[in-house]
Amino acid sequence: MRFGWLEYIIQGIIVLSLIEFALETLPDLSVKQIRMLRYFETGSISIFTVEYVLRILLSRPPKKYSFSFFGLIDLLAILPFYLSLGVDLRSLRAFRLLRLFRILKLARYSHAVQRFHRAFIIAREELLLFGATACIVLYLAAVGIYYCEHAAQPDKFRSIFDSLWWAVATLTTVGYGDIYPITGWGKLFTFVILIVGLGIIAVPTGLVASALSKARQEQEKEASPDRDVG
Amino acid sequence: MRFGWLEYIIQGIIVLSLIEFALETLPDLSVKQIRMLRYFETGSISIFTVEYVLRILLSRPPKKYSFSFFGLIDLLAILPFYLSLGVDLRSLRAFRLLRLFRILKLARYSHAVQRFHRAFIIAREELLLFGATACIVLYLAAVGIYYCEHAAQPDKFRSIFDSLWWAVATLTTVGYGDIYPITGWGKLFTFVILIVGLGIIAVPTGLVASALSKARQEQEKEASPDRDVG
Amino acid sequence: MRFGWLEYIIQGIIVLSLIEFALETLPDLSVKQIRMLRYFETGSISIFTVEYVLRILLSRPPKKYSFSFFGLIDLLAILPFYLSLGVDLRSLRAFRLLRLFRILKLARYSHAVQRFHRAFIIAREELLLFGATACIVLYLAAVGIYYCEHAAQPDKFRSIFDSLWWAVATLTTVGYGDIYPITGWGKLFTFVILIVGLGIIAVPTGLVASALSKARQEQEKEASPDRDVG
Amino acid sequence: MRFGWLEYIIQGIIVLSLIEFALETLPDLSVKQIRMLRYFETGSISIFTVEYVLRILLSRPPKKYSFSFFGLIDLLAILPFYLSLGVDLRSLRAFRLLRLFRILKLARYSHAVQRFHRAFIIAREELLLFGATACIVLYLAAVGIYYCEHAAQPDKFRSIFDSLWWAVATLTTVGYGDIYPITGWGKLFTFVILIVGLGIIAVPTGLVASALSKARQEQEKEASPDRDVG
Repeated sequence: MRFGWLEYIIQGIIVLSLIEFALETLPDLSVKQIRMLRYFETGSISIFTVEYVLRILLSRPPKKYSFSFFGLIDLLAILPFYLSLGVDLRSLRAFRLLRLFRILKLARYSHAVQRFHRAFIIAREELLLFGATACIVLYLAAVGIYYCEHAAQPDKFRSIFDSLWWAVATLTTVGYGDIYPITGWGKLFTFVILIVGLGIIAVPTGLVASALSKARQEQEKEASPDRDVG
Repeated sequence: MRFGWLEYIIQGIIVLSLIEFALETLPDLSVKQIRMLRYFETGSISIFTVEYVLRILLSRPPKKYSFSFFGLIDLLAILPFYLSLGVDLRSLRAFRLLRLFRILKLARYSHAVQRFHRAFIIAREELLLFGATACIVLYLAAVGIYYCEHAAQPDKFRSIFDSLWWAVATLTTVGYGDIYPITGWGKLFTFVILIVGLGIIAVPTGLVASALSKARQEQEKEASPDRDVG
Repeated sequence: MRFGWLEYIIQGIIVLSLIEFALETLPDLSVKQIRMLRYFETGSISIFTVEYVLRILLSRPPKKYSFSFFGLIDLLAILPFYLSLGVDLRSLRAFRLLRLFRILKLARYSHAVQRFHRAFIIAREELLLFGATACIVLYLAAVGIYYCEHAAQPDKFRSIFDSLWWAVATLTTVGYGDIYPITGWGKLFTFVILIVGLGIIAVPTGLVASALSKARQEQEKEASPDRDVG
Repeated sequence: MRFGWLEYIIQGIIVLSLIEFALETLPDLSVKQIRMLRYFETGSISIFTVEYVLRILLSRPPKKYSFSFFGLIDLLAILPFYLSLGVDLRSLRAFRLLRLFRILKLARYSHAVQRFHRAFIIAREELLLFGATACIVLYLAAVGIYYCEHAAQPDKFRSIFDSLWWAVATLTTVGYGDIYPITGWGKLFTFVILIVGLGIIAVPTGLVASALSKARQEQEKEASPDRDVG
């Protein structure tokens, strides 16, 4: 609590360093811009390293922090940078993704992660149940559309795996428009599977929402145990 | 319960055999890969057959299982394979789909099916009521857009059946983009029907969700009849 | 109640006659098929006429039915046919749409209409409030995207009315793909307006759902006034 | 209350003047039509000016209104017009947008704004929490699809910013179809991120809805403090 403002600074640097990660992928960067991004990267890693070393030194039982969950996260957030100094530049690409571990550093300050975790525990069984049901609906939708459309569009609905892609894009109502039925039977099947499937696919989303609201009630109950929460 | 691990194995084989079903539809399989899929198919059917025979032998009143719902499902899951051995290869394609009956074997282990069944019974009347209402909204949307767009796009909105396809894709918000209004009146009509229709189409989905939560409460009530569940 | 089976027959004929209405719009009908559709149309109108005449004769105060809501609906459902006999065939197209009035005949048997009516009364004020808010959000979205995209795509985002079409298709998440932003600012604006707008557009849909559930509770309360419904 | 009908007229003129704002952007207006729109604009501004002057004169402590929130809004709604008379026509375009401030004049009469304000205060912390979580999910989705698709479609998924646009269009289920994965890994990743992400993106929308219903309950409680609202 005493170092509250420090935590905000660390969080700010994490967010900036995620933006820097995205900026690096821009195709037409000048040499000057690349150099500036490198400088920022080196600077942010230095700060994370100082933070890591301080946390190790300050943790009361000295080894407690370094083997804790967040200790490992903090290590993983800086390790890729130092490893990349030792190896040649070709394999840098693979290391880049490892740098994303620093997004987990944000979890330390986030109550959302904690609440999602609780909500997941509350609704775990049901999520698995209806998640599996949703997968079966997607599978049946894919098989059905494959038999309706394969003959008419052999290049689009080549196999059940292409049909699965259609099923995912359709039943989540994304509907990119890269693949869609053109035969009468295919369209009729789409209509039926949408009517039946939307309700089933919507169930897990609803479960997450209701479990999150239960998780909040539990947290409020713990915060004020004498008050009765309906 | 004693054979819990056996049930998990059977379930695993069912899932694998559904994946094998999808793999078979891949267009560019080598002869070797096709042979391997055949081997796996034969192996899984053998296991299902052994399971079927054992279940017949072990059921206390000998004929109870073989004429039960799951007995018939288990028979339907293996029958297509044996029938396909007797007939020539041309009609195999029709038999392939029959193999999907084994997906129903999963229902034996699934609480989700039971809960959907209960939820359907709870909300049956309302589902029919609002399902029919949704169909009428789709029909009116199709007629309306047909009169707005048929003159401008006679090749896309050829008849009310093409317009129905548009209505389904639009009111479920899938929106593939293969068919959409281009006239001012058509766009205005789409706007109005979306504002009115989204609320009506969303009702059945909400009914499924709320009936499922009621079904769970009922199951919990039965599990602990002395506790009062609000 | 005594004529329950008759009502189902009438309903069935209404549904069949709506399908016939759609079939007539098919572009490549043979002369024979058109004649069959005409025969069915004449037959169904005859039945509706008999029903109308019987209802007039049987209604206790003789004029009560003919001036009631459903009496007018029943008249409007058959009138277009008889009017079309007197005029020449050119104006038939306009009369076709009048035939859709028979869809309102279904309302007589529908509890859904009644419940939607009640739900609308319950949530009327809020629906107007948030319906207007949704319209303002759509307007602001259209103005914003117009200023972002007009310069880059003058043929797609020609005026704010084209932008409104984009706003409707985007904020209802239909997303046909006929019109979308291509500039960086346009994409950023779309992101912001989606985050803010989805919540606001979703409110009226949620209001309909919750008002419908209230309407059902009221109906249940009336059916069993001594029982206390929480 | 005495001037209730006057308020409706002012509101009507505001709405008409917003429509006029949209009409001005139509590309093929005749000189006559442009002149008519100008006349209407001048007329509506005159009415707003009269309203502004009257409100200033009638407010009891004379300066209370002119420095209040709505006083400033009313000034901003007419100022752009008078400023545009003094400057040359080139910079008119920038002033046009300023004219949109008159949309805020509608807020005076709107209970929806008040309720959204309350709902925002109720759910502020949670909205920020899950809004941030949604942003992180969008970011991770963008990074993931970039690494899956950049090699296959370097012109579509040029950088993580293009991928972010894909993530926004996909996870809100808009799905324009201008950018979508074509590789197997990209499609698999889309499937996973949709299953996980839809639940998370849906949370803020649900929060807005539940906070709005709480805000209404609070308002009703205040209106009838003796009645107990559960």
